Amino acid sequence: MISFMNDYSEGAHPRVLELLMKSNFEQNTGYGEDIHSEKAKGYIKKKLQREDVDIHFIPAGTQTNLLTISSFLQPHHGVIAADTGHINVHETGAIEATGHKVIAMPGKDGKLTPDAIKKALDYHRDEHMVKPKMVYISDTTELGTIYTKAELTAIHDICKKNNLLLFLDGARLGSALTCKGNDLELKDIVKLADVFYIGGTKNGALLGEALVICKEELKEEFRYLMKQRGAMLAKGFVIGIQFEALFLDDLYYELAEHANQMAERITHALKAMGYAFSAPACSNQLFPILPNALVDKLSKEFKFSIQEKVDEGHSVVRFVTSWATKEENVDKLIQCLKSETNGTTII
Amino acid sequence: MISFMNDYSEGAHPRVLELLMKSNFEQNTGYGEDIHSEKAKGYIKKKLQREDVDIHFIPAGTQTNLLTISSFLQPHHGVIAADTGHINVHETGAIEATGHKVIAMPGKDGKLTPDAIKKALDYHRDEHMVKPKMVYISDTTELGTIYTKAELTAIHDICKKNNLLLFLDGARLGSALTCKGNDLELKDIVKLADVFYIGGTKNGALLGEALVICKEELKEEFRYLMKQRGAMLAKGFVIGIQFEALFLDDLYYELAEHANQMAERITHALKAMGYAFSAPACSNQLFPILPNALVDKLSKEFKFSIQEKVDEGHSVVRFVTSWATKEENVDKLIQCLKSETNGTTII
Amino acid sequence: MISFMNDYSEGAHPRVLELLMKSNFEQNTGYGEDIHSEKAKGYIKKKLQREDVDIHFIPAGTQTNLLTISSFLQPHHGVIAADTGHINVHETGAIEATGHKVIAMPGKDGKLTPDAIKKALDYHRDEHMVKPKMVYISDTTELGTIYTKAELTAIHDICKKNNLLLFLDGARLGSALTCKGNDLELKDIVKLADVFYIGGTKNGALLGEALVICKEELKEEFRYLMKQRGAMLAKGFVIGIQFEALFLDDLYYELAEHANQMAERITHALKAMGYAFSAPACSNQLFPILPNALVDKLSKEFKFSIQEKVDEGHSVVRFVTSWATKEENVDKLIQCLKSETNGTTII
Amino acid sequence: MISFMNDYSEGAHPRVLELLMKSNFEQNTGYGEDIHSEKAKGYIKKKLQREDVDIHFIPAGTQTNLLTISSFLQPHHGVIAADTGHINVHETGAIEATGHKVIAMPGKDGKLTPDAIKKALDYHRDEHMVKPKMVYISDTTELGTIYTKAELTAIHDICKKNNLLLFLDGARLGSALTCKGNDLELKDIVKLADVFYIGGTKNGALLGEALVICKEELKEEFRYLMKQRGAMLAKGFVIGIQFEALFLDDLYYELAEHANQMAERITHALKAMGYAFSAPACSNQLFPILPNALVDKLSKEFKFSIQEKVDEGHSVVRFVTSWATKEENVDKLIQCLKSETNGTTII
Repeated sequence: MISFMNDYSEGAHPRVLELLMKSNFEQNTGYGEDIHSEKAKGYIKKKLQREDVDIHFIPAGTQTNLLTISSFLQPHHGVIAADTGHINVHETGAIEATGHKVIAMPGKDGKLTPDAIKKALDYHRDEHMVKPKMVYISDTTELGTIYTKAELTAIHDICKKNNLLLFLDGARLGSALTCKGNDLELKDIVKLADVFYIGGTKNGALLGEALVICKEELKEEFRYLMKQRGAMLAKGFVIGIQFEALFLDDLYYELAEHANQMAERITHALKAMGYAFSAPACSNQLFPILPNALVDKLSKEFKFSIQEKVDEGHSVVRFVTSWATKEENVDKLIQCLKSETNGTTII
Repeated sequence: MISFMNDYSEGAHPRVLELLMKSNFEQNTGYGEDIHSEKAKGYIKKKLQREDVDIHFIPAGTQTNLLTISSFLQPHHGVIAADTGHINVHETGAIEATGHKVIAMPGKDGKLTPDAIKKALDYHRDEHMVKPKMVYISDTTELGTIYTKAELTAIHDICKKNNLLLFLDGARLGSALTCKGNDLELKDIVKLADVFYIGGTKNGALLGEALVICKEELKEEFRYLMKQRGAMLAKGFVIGIQFEALFLDDLYYELAEHANQMAERITHALKAMGYAFSAPACSNQLFPILPNALVDKLSKEFKFSIQEKVDEGHSVVRFVTSWATKEENVDKLIQCLKSETNGTTII
Repeated sequence: MISFMNDYSEGAHPRVLELLMKSNFEQNTGYGEDIHSEKAKGYIKKKLQREDVDIHFIPAGTQTNLLTISSFLQPHHGVIAADTGHINVHETGAIEATGHKVIAMPGKDGKLTPDAIKKALDYHRDEHMVKPKMVYISDTTELGTIYTKAELTAIHDICKKNNLLLFLDGARLGSALTCKGNDLELKDIVKLADVFYIGGTKNGALLGEALVICKEELKEEFRYLMKQRGAMLAKGFVIGIQFEALFLDDLYYELAEHANQMAERITHALKAMGYAFSAPACSNQLFPILPNALVDKLSKEFKFSIQEKVDEGHSVVRFVTSWATKEENVDKLIQCLKSETNGTTII
Repeated sequence: MISFMNDYSEGAHPRVLELLMKSNFEQNTGYGEDIHSEKAKGYIKKKLQREDVDIHFIPAGTQTNLLTISSFLQPHHGVIAADTGHINVHETGAIEATGHKVIAMPGKDGKLTPDAIKKALDYHRDEHMVKPKMVYISDTTELGTIYTKAELTAIHDICKKNNLLLFLDGARLGSALTCKGNDLELKDIVKLADVFYIGGTKNGALLGEALVICKEELKEEFRYLMKQRGAMLAKGFVIGIQFEALFLDDLYYELAEHANQMAERITHALKAMGYAFSAPACSNQLFPILPNALVDKLSKEFKFSIQEKVDEGHSVVRFVTSWATKEENVDKLIQCLKSETNGTTII
């Protein structure tokens, strides 16, 4: 079976593994205070075109979200997110477990809008309700869509104006930054977000996310909070080395670009066959609406997830590509789609 | 500089890395539900001589501690630990951050005693105090000492009698199980503890701990709790593969044994030179009491930690060995100790 | 200014104060273990027609909600509530502050339906989401509506079937049990809910809610949890005495009935004048839709809250009556409504 | 049976009840924003000789402690307390339940010393341990002892120097401020503490503590936190009225003085009989060491608590007096002590 189930099925990109091998017998300082983590931070700062940020390597995404949100909010503060946001739906209440309400607002193709933020602010108007203090967005979103520079700027502006922190979850930031239609760069994000992260797990690493704290006031004593939440690896250098490999040159971008190209080929094929998508296709996650018969047929050869029923005869499915997706497997998927679609009436 | 600072300075044992390389391009199921994790659990169960346990792979030690303790206690429950216990001292209040009091009792060479447990129970006698519900111990302890089978059985018995859960932190369980004086095996521990873990980070893995839930009532819905605390890696197979390599045959034991042997050589040398230890030397952590002049001298060639001042002229230092400690480096350390000690008056 | 703002503007009913005065110099046992609390519990149990429940007196409503929910859920459990539910909207994230997600589902006139519960269960289907474990409802609801016996039974049934705890917030239970259309009695509720409370603050007491734990498994060690959340008053007898006065005979019911009658008179008048209500009027909270000119006029003589704008010319307002509402003030309100309404076009 | 068990056995002082009665039918604003609370705050500010503080009325002591500590600390912060401190021993882990470690240090007669604070600071030196950020003391202490102005100033100074917040629990502040040996006034405390409270429950009120926030930076949004912890009564005026009665003139002081005088008479008698005390007797809590035979005899006529065994023949008991303690009952206690002591050998 070929899997288009997700972008965390394979291990790490060979160049990442290579550097892990090469430095395996060095004696590193523990808890992320090693030379590799330092180098990796230096490379990332170069891409950010900013020196005055703090970078921390965290093992996983949900952990990064819960750590970040709980560190920067006071007990009575809530965080605004799109209703489809990862923290609202797929983290088993990790944010609430740290004591904070997720204020879920209707999103648009998975994206939060300034209007929705304004509505949340207007609604939460007195001390009998939590006080919104942070906005959480992800790029790409859970629906594979991206924020344009104009959109992110508009969100930044409403946050600034209302004293809200802006946190961008970049578990799939690689895909966002390298997909068609994107006009954001890391150097923009570092200006617009107060804190964000660059995902490694889903773009070439075994594990690890690089959290970037841009706002001065948020930096102090953060390592205490990492330790307390169990997010400080004894062998922190294991993540440091991986980000060193990913950002030494443009490997991080190349890997994401490959994932996007694989997705794009599938998108083109699906569109040519006349299939619609439940959310605009642009990054490495695709959400086409397929006839159930085709879904059944595909299921015999491919692994992918079925998101929801559209009507009696159709379902939304999710195909995900990654740095490790092979062209030949994409070809096989397209072949299978085509073989089934010939002569079929399409919605 | 040669480091005897800790047992998490190097990467992973080559055979662990090899298996990671070999399986790098397989398409695995996410979140620890992959074939490698299954295999690893099978191998571990064989060593435990028990099939009816649940095993979960967690990225790191503090995370395992906070996850385990918070999962099995109700809000008003406290956990009894030796005052030197890792959860009491070195986890930045991670346990309290999940809402639970650590009831710290005086330990004996880092070990908790049935007497101390009884005292804690006697003291906490009504609803104005937390109710002790769990006992936390670690083997080896923070002072490098170990529990004998008789000692662990005595603790088990008092726990059973008083309806206390027994949790054994095995971050350094490998060293404990293979050191001189030890008479415990995994198959004993699984009978005596309600939950415990087998540490990978400090014994050959890049990261990862294998949590073993022995008590039936604790098993249910544990994966929800893992996810909520950010302890469920998307690429869970990364830990699974490593434990597969460590437990496929006896690699886990061999690595720990090597660490212990390296420590033993240092111990012999120190004892021959007449140095005392602040805690009985038996595993891969040594706490000799050295004259400050010698400490200074050593510091120029070796990295190690200075624990505490004993008197004006002496300090307790900590030497730690690991699977990766090279014999030649141990020789150099002993050499340096000797060169300095000749002609010196020793305490 | 005459206030119809809420049902907690005045102190306590004179008979409640009297008993406080009378027993003021007795030397009572602390922390709610006094003779008055015992008596009060006895009287309440008689009304419940059940001896095998535990009753605890808690100072306030939000405290009772956060205590109850956090005591009976494990960390990964969520509580289902109507989107208008008090815990979802008006408690400053008190439930989330104890670590639990409130799963807000669309309500119908403030009431949760079995359908909405089923939807929540269907949606939360795996370990990446919180596990629904409790249903929270209030009677009367935030919109002043009530549950019929059939409705509560249906909710009870779906909870039973799905292993969900049913918690009924009775901050205004007096009004619910004595209003027209109600067919529930305390003896029904004790059978249908696992835990519920009888509100004192809003029905004749200075403060205090009587929490009734019906389900055997929830009773154990509850006083520990009360103490931990700061919900155990040193002078617990202060609440005990008040419930003694309220339940010695039928004072609790009489007070609520009076509040309902006052509300009913306002309802009749408003209906006669042709005004609509945004939620069915039946208890001591009324939500009529009034023209803004009338709202302005009323505001000069009466205190009440404006809930929301309906259209350019109309708003929903809230009138609340209580045990202390004077008939003459109701007459004045009706007079003022009438004087303004003559000759006005009504929506 | 006459009780010397505690200072929360009786209701409220008659003048407090009177004012509650007198204002019972006023229509007050809810949630503590009423005219009585305003007045009470005004009277208290006069005693403080400071206008620039925020005062909030909280129902109970443990609640005040958990609310205050959790509001002003970040997740990784700990609070230093004497090992006998109420938050460390008698609040069922209420502080830990909000996520914070209580750093318990050996006290001296129940009092924390600058030395102990320094030791705690020296010990907690890196990010693997919680960061001490607050000092908690109580006046009187759990052992009935008091802080002198010099002692409190010394603690203030070390806090200032080390950026620690100083929180003074004044559950029994009345007794402290009016006992022999005291040289502190409210106007001193407001300068030396960052936040403290004036206890009502144990000095004439039915319930209620007045929390005074002195430090500007701690004031903002505090009412959100009160609401979230369930500490904001709907009928907040019930506490406001009581503090109005207590601070309108010097009632608060008179009541405490009475309690102290009653205790002093018992102290004199005990000393005359040659009995020792386990902690210096100075306020309304006494801890004499009595022969067990006497304890048994007393137990037949009086209620009091037995604290601990001293040796085979002696125990420490606790006698507590209050505003409501009758002279005749003190006489009876002394009589009983004397009758038993004649001819007895005293330790």
